[in-house]
Amino acid sequence: MKAFAILGKGKTGWVDIKPPVPGPLDVILRPTAICPCTSDIHIVDALPPEYAHIIGRPLGHEGIGVVEETGSEVKKFKVGDHVAGLGMFLDFRSDEAQAGLAQYDPFGSYPDRLYRYGGTFAEHIHVYDADANLALIPDNVNPIQAAMVTDMMATSFTQAEQANIQYGDSVAVLGIGPVGLMGICAARLKGAGRVLAIGSRRACFEKAELYGANDLINYKNGDLAQQVLEANHGPVDVVLVCGGTSSAIGDALKMVKFGGTISNVALFWGEDNTILPNQDWGYGCVQFKTITGTQVKGGSYFVKKLLNLISYGRVDPEPLASHIFHGFDKIEESYKTMSVKTPDLIKPVVLMEGLKL
Amino acid sequence: MKAFAILGKGKTGWVDIKPPVPGPLDVILRPTAICPCTSDIHIVDALPPEYAHIIGRPLGHEGIGVVEETGSEVKKFKVGDHVAGLGMFLDFRSDEAQAGLAQYDPFGSYPDRLYRYGGTFAEHIHVYDADANLALIPDNVNPIQAAMVTDMMATSFTQAEQANIQYGDSVAVLGIGPVGLMGICAARLKGAGRVLAIGSRRACFEKAELYGANDLINYKNGDLAQQVLEANHGPVDVVLVCGGTSSAIGDALKMVKFGGTISNVALFWGEDNTILPNQDWGYGCVQFKTITGTQVKGGSYFVKKLLNLISYGRVDPEPLASHIFHGFDKIEESYKTMSVKTPDLIKPVVLMEGLKL
Amino acid sequence: MKAFAILGKGKTGWVDIKPPVPGPLDVILRPTAICPCTSDIHIVDALPPEYAHIIGRPLGHEGIGVVEETGSEVKKFKVGDHVAGLGMFLDFRSDEAQAGLAQYDPFGSYPDRLYRYGGTFAEHIHVYDADANLALIPDNVNPIQAAMVTDMMATSFTQAEQANIQYGDSVAVLGIGPVGLMGICAARLKGAGRVLAIGSRRACFEKAELYGANDLINYKNGDLAQQVLEANHGPVDVVLVCGGTSSAIGDALKMVKFGGTISNVALFWGEDNTILPNQDWGYGCVQFKTITGTQVKGGSYFVKKLLNLISYGRVDPEPLASHIFHGFDKIEESYKTMSVKTPDLIKPVVLMEGLKL
Amino acid sequence: MKAFAILGKGKTGWVDIKPPVPGPLDVILRPTAICPCTSDIHIVDALPPEYAHIIGRPLGHEGIGVVEETGSEVKKFKVGDHVAGLGMFLDFRSDEAQAGLAQYDPFGSYPDRLYRYGGTFAEHIHVYDADANLALIPDNVNPIQAAMVTDMMATSFTQAEQANIQYGDSVAVLGIGPVGLMGICAARLKGAGRVLAIGSRRACFEKAELYGANDLINYKNGDLAQQVLEANHGPVDVVLVCGGTSSAIGDALKMVKFGGTISNVALFWGEDNTILPNQDWGYGCVQFKTITGTQVKGGSYFVKKLLNLISYGRVDPEPLASHIFHGFDKIEESYKTMSVKTPDLIKPVVLMEGLKL
Repeated sequence: MKAFAILGKGKTGWVDIKPPVPGPLDVILRPTAICPCTSDIHIVDALPPEYAHIIGRPLGHEGIGVVEETGSEVKKFKVGDHVAGLGMFLDFRSDEAQAGLAQYDPFGSYPDRLYRYGGTFAEHIHVYDADANLALIPDNVNPIQAAMVTDMMATSFTQAEQANIQYGDSVAVLGIGPVGLMGICAARLKGAGRVLAIGSRRACFEKAELYGANDLINYKNGDLAQQVLEANHGPVDVVLVCGGTSSAIGDALKMVKFGGTISNVALFWGEDNTILPNQDWGYGCVQFKTITGTQVKGGSYFVKKLLNLISYGRVDPEPLASHIFHGFDKIEESYKTMSVKTPDLIKPVVLMEGLKL
Repeated sequence: MKAFAILGKGKTGWVDIKPPVPGPLDVILRPTAICPCTSDIHIVDALPPEYAHIIGRPLGHEGIGVVEETGSEVKKFKVGDHVAGLGMFLDFRSDEAQAGLAQYDPFGSYPDRLYRYGGTFAEHIHVYDADANLALIPDNVNPIQAAMVTDMMATSFTQAEQANIQYGDSVAVLGIGPVGLMGICAARLKGAGRVLAIGSRRACFEKAELYGANDLINYKNGDLAQQVLEANHGPVDVVLVCGGTSSAIGDALKMVKFGGTISNVALFWGEDNTILPNQDWGYGCVQFKTITGTQVKGGSYFVKKLLNLISYGRVDPEPLASHIFHGFDKIEESYKTMSVKTPDLIKPVVLMEGLKL
Repeated sequence: MKAFAILGKGKTGWVDIKPPVPGPLDVILRPTAICPCTSDIHIVDALPPEYAHIIGRPLGHEGIGVVEETGSEVKKFKVGDHVAGLGMFLDFRSDEAQAGLAQYDPFGSYPDRLYRYGGTFAEHIHVYDADANLALIPDNVNPIQAAMVTDMMATSFTQAEQANIQYGDSVAVLGIGPVGLMGICAARLKGAGRVLAIGSRRACFEKAELYGANDLINYKNGDLAQQVLEANHGPVDVVLVCGGTSSAIGDALKMVKFGGTISNVALFWGEDNTILPNQDWGYGCVQFKTITGTQVKGGSYFVKKLLNLISYGRVDPEPLASHIFHGFDKIEESYKTMSVKTPDLIKPVVLMEGLKL
Repeated sequence: MKAFAILGKGKTGWVDIKPPVPGPLDVILRPTAICPCTSDIHIVDALPPEYAHIIGRPLGHEGIGVVEETGSEVKKFKVGDHVAGLGMFLDFRSDEAQAGLAQYDPFGSYPDRLYRYGGTFAEHIHVYDADANLALIPDNVNPIQAAMVTDMMATSFTQAEQANIQYGDSVAVLGIGPVGLMGICAARLKGAGRVLAIGSRRACFEKAELYGANDLINYKNGDLAQQVLEANHGPVDVVLVCGGTSSAIGDALKMVKFGGTISNVALFWGEDNTILPNQDWGYGCVQFKTITGTQVKGGSYFVKKLLNLISYGRVDPEPLASHIFHGFDKIEESYKTMSVKTPDLIKPVVLMEGLKL
């Protein structure tokens, strides 16, 4: 089968490889929509030597598809079902899952969790443990919306769950790419009052406003934390860090209240340390600030619940799709679009042939 | 001063009484908007002998006002401030408050908590511990909205906090008077997906739809639980019980999933027992259903957070005000309107003289 | 193979049946220790017609054993491993498990969850999804201790997790059979201060004292709730209901504080309703009392953690074993001992041939 | 009155000052037992210019006493009552308290919270808001035990509450001075299985063992985190950081599991930054490690609950008292003993004249 694969550090390209064979719990999907993600690009660009074994595998971890083939033990799905759930395929039988942390399962290090069986940029996608990982896409959710669930929504909604947001809280969203934009919605749907969106690009600010941000703060216009403190007339209750380098954590400490929470989903690869300025986090204890970080939570249950939020009108991720491509062959172009980050870019999506919205 | 008071079991009327004198922590308010509440009516109508001591006191526990006089120890407020927070006046220095349950403070039994110093249907309102109980009304929140915070929003949002609502959950709201209508919003703002509103009056259904309910279920059209199970294609995750008699708990048990939560704010006064049908709550354990009940949480912090939700555009309680009266003298008429419950009634509000929206 | 089986309503006996064959995720165990449980007896005695399909299956859901055979996909265990985890075999890939409620999985109704593949009173025990359900028994945990984990400890520790016990709380344990006795420990290990043990038999009181109960209350000596209120100089923070009929919930409501929690593991089979006296639960809301019920939580992770508690000296369930039998053939006698409930009975255990403690 | 006071940076001494006058909510206590604390010493030694206003005030924030005088509004206490609760005097009417964080009240910066009205090393101690801050000492709790509640127990038990300890978890306690030793107990009483105590002094190790630590790890014997990983055969679930410099956070990150929690009460005064090694905290997100810090929670409710734990036999802090002094004049000597830190020091306590244990 054809696939767009990782070929080495900084290198990608098309390959022709053997199609996947499902294990007893697995299914094979024919993709209907896929999205490239900044994480794909980061992994290709950084590719450390210990990840050499993923060379040759299809890239991509976002996408949806139609079931083509099912393993012998699959009970919930049949050929022809249109399903979502492809961010990461998790082992819900693991101790980690039983402790409530399926995303920290023992399938290996970070890239292995994404590409263990090869990614979504392929003619056939191998999904591990389908019953535990996939959800049917409701009739009134379109492919673009469903594709956005699999990482953009799932990541930010996992993050907001960790952030202890209470009714009426002020929430700063630091970084308003597609994950941060969904973070605005995730904060609202946990009861946030004022939401302050921090970014720099006009395209992102427009979407932030659409999604309910009350303040648009440009970090190029001066000290980031100072701007937030002024706009909010004091510290915020919660900070969602959705992008940037590790200095974002220091910025967040400066803008969050005594007893507030910083929830992070940005990956600080390539930086050795994250520095906490002691005055701003209360010398370790006198301000009771909590710092937590998480990756996307997956699983059929969570994906189904997120699809519910779209289906019942609580959130619409479709406006994230700034660049829509048509046809499997456009995967490479979509990947390059994501890499280049033109001013109007939010998120590219590739719709496969013959797909009707 | 003039006040509309409880005069005995089933009796109300105007009285002329001594104006209140604030304690060191207290303030006196001149009301700007007040609302009668079903609870006022229930208490007057039921008035058990042990509550005889509240006879002669002003009725009313909902309302907002302007600070007229401050006790010596009041630090946050000054004469002229426009403030909300009048649902119940709580002692935040109590053990109960320190355990997170300020509403269960030792000020005595239920009516005493409401009318301890006399209620809000008076020319001057006595507020206990102002710094701990009141919040400034933001400029962009109008008096009707603010008045609705003090019980309707505060009650339903407290209830939803107890209900363990997760992203995408289906929530049935049983009873869609003004508290239940705000419960729809409270559920949405905790991340509910599908919201099913259960009532019977057209006026209520219209507001339920406005507030985001996905299903309108008329309990006069057949078995209540059965209708919910059919509409939702299975049990719901959470039930908010916002009205009815104690049989509502049995209905809720029939419609909630294994492991689901029932959160109740209805008061089953006049009924000796609440009956749990064992088959529907798993004979006590095999279905892990949680039943909890609560009254309104108060306090300056919570009221401020609820006002934030209005101020930042997350909820608008103004449409609850189906009947708007103008002038202090209209309190009696508003009270009678609430008692009669005409088909178009949601909630009456009385705006005082000279008030501009 | 030989097995002690359910033969009909109220009937048990020895059968010779085909030994189990493991599925790809499963293992077969040779039992080393088993315990009869009151639940086994209740199910046999009540056996409703809809459970007719379990007739002929081996009884028993408590026990430990040595791995004899492993399915093709089992990764954590090998032949010869000594393992625990047999209370209920759960499907951790289910939606329920992903929602944190593995014990409410879709394997069917209550008895099916216990005897789905036949129980533990057999020469060979079939364990579903071994990797997700079993844990290795540490060297310093003996077979009696390990056997007590599988239901007695697992049930009461699940219950205490639901009970919201805070440091220094007073906890009443209503019913001090083996589950209630472990409930005393579970409460202590969640930080309980005063623990009040409620029962009637001297043997149970002796163990309650050994396990750290501060007060021993005999329900035959007068009104149960009244005795607790007097001993504790007021209501308790938490009630663990570990036995009795549905009236125990009413008793618990009378003794628990405003805002307190009642956590129940007793099964009220054979009773149509549970009656909540409205005055004692605040007419549904004015006392904010929470009632919850649960069955045992299972899974390799939880079982491992409970074994840790024994291994590191936090709790010792061995004193529960009031009657120790030796040899597979003694299962019937142990079962009858459990049924008869002699005054000195706490819990029988059967150690298999050749087992050294 | 006589008092042992802060006289400047690094300077302390006896002063004769005006005795305190209680506000309406306050009481004055005659001390019965006090303890010097490392925090007192740190504040004296570091005294930054912005804290100059505390010069001249009595030192000390730990201690218990007998009520000598009560303010007009005090309801729960009368002259002669023996009470505890002196760690910090908090304003439970504040927004912070209503948000569950009384210890972050607006009384000003860290030293002001301790010495706002002068400390406990005085003939008469001024307690703010007695009803909200004090608890009666039960008859079976002796003065040494009660004095240890006011900071040593209160701090470590607050810390353990933040640490999300589950049944059977492995917990590393980093730093086993008196707070860390109580941390061992706090962890046990939240359900910890294995507890690993990390220190260097023999006197501390002896107490750690007495309090139930399973492993005694000397950080002078090699890499701290490596020793913990080896002893525990893998990472621990939770780390309680109870001492050390900011590098302790980095050590904790190395020893805690994916998804684990680090709860800190050490104060990193005098250090500009805390450095998180990115590889060990998953580059901000891929290991989901939570870092939180807190100061002592106070309040009558919490103090009462901690006294319960002693009264009902769950913990005994008396063995912390390695150096017992008799008489008010010995405060200076006790303070110097704390400063010098002899090898056998755990905690000094001064019992006042005429006190019987």
